[in-house]
Amino acid sequence: MNLDFEKSGGLVTAVVQDHATGRVLMVGYMNEEAFRATVETGFATFYSRSRRKLWLKGETSGHRLLVKQITTDCDRDAVLLQVEALGPGVCHEGYASCFFRRLENGEWKIAESPTYSPRAVYGDPA
Amino acid sequence: MNLDFEKSGGLVTAVVQDHATGRVLMVGYMNEEAFRATVETGFATFYSRSRRKLWLKGETSGHRLLVKQITTDCDRDAVLLQVEALGPGVCHEGYASCFFRRLENGEWKIAESPTYSPRAVYGDPA
Repeated sequence: MNLDFEKSGGLVTAVVQDHATGRVLMVGYMNEEAFRATVETGFATFYSRSRRKLWLKGETSGHRLLVKQITTDCDRDAVLLQVEALGPGVCHEGYASCFFRRLENGEWKIAESPTYSPRAVYGDPA
Repeated sequence: MNLDFEKSGGLVTAVVQDHATGRVLMVGYMNEEAFRATVETGFATFYSRSRRKLWLKGETSGHRLLVKQITTDCDRDAVLLQVEALGPGVCHEGYASCFFRRLENGEWKIAESPTYSPRAVYGDPA
């Protein structure tokens, strides 16, 4: 029984959850090659829709995602990764989770503090 | 600051998480109308990609998702809903979560027991 990569143009949705705290850290997308790389290496690998290539999460920052468990949903077009996040944060904007903005009275408000400096990790923006 | 509905052809990815246990229950998709309906009614409403229409989760089963909190990610093309799931299960196949299959040695195995009978809720398949 395989994943359904056809439903969304070759991609499945990948939800990443901290295996210890249960916090949802990010959502990415995987083509079949990215999914296979994730399973084979044990580190979450996505397909970057903007850069159109495989993307080993943490390749630049070192903030890799060590995969502890993978589940799939009923129609097999999404996977859920339970991970141990290596490093201070998953989000390239400097937060522990990419989901750092909360809807409050119709507006998105930053609801937490950064956990690291993106500039220190990724360098100055060009 | 609005959600980015353009990136994926008018849809954002919506991850649904149990607000009390942290369990990820399902992944759906929302167009702008579905997102607005979710915020206005307080019940999760998706856009069904297969039926091409709005889909109030629990419309048939009564298993609605009462939304407690909504967050969005850094690039605003995904939302995370913290919900109270009304009813015994979110998955139309009879499970508490749609993510009931776990990858074990390269095969997807059903990793838990159903929590209700889909036939009792949805009737016999035609």
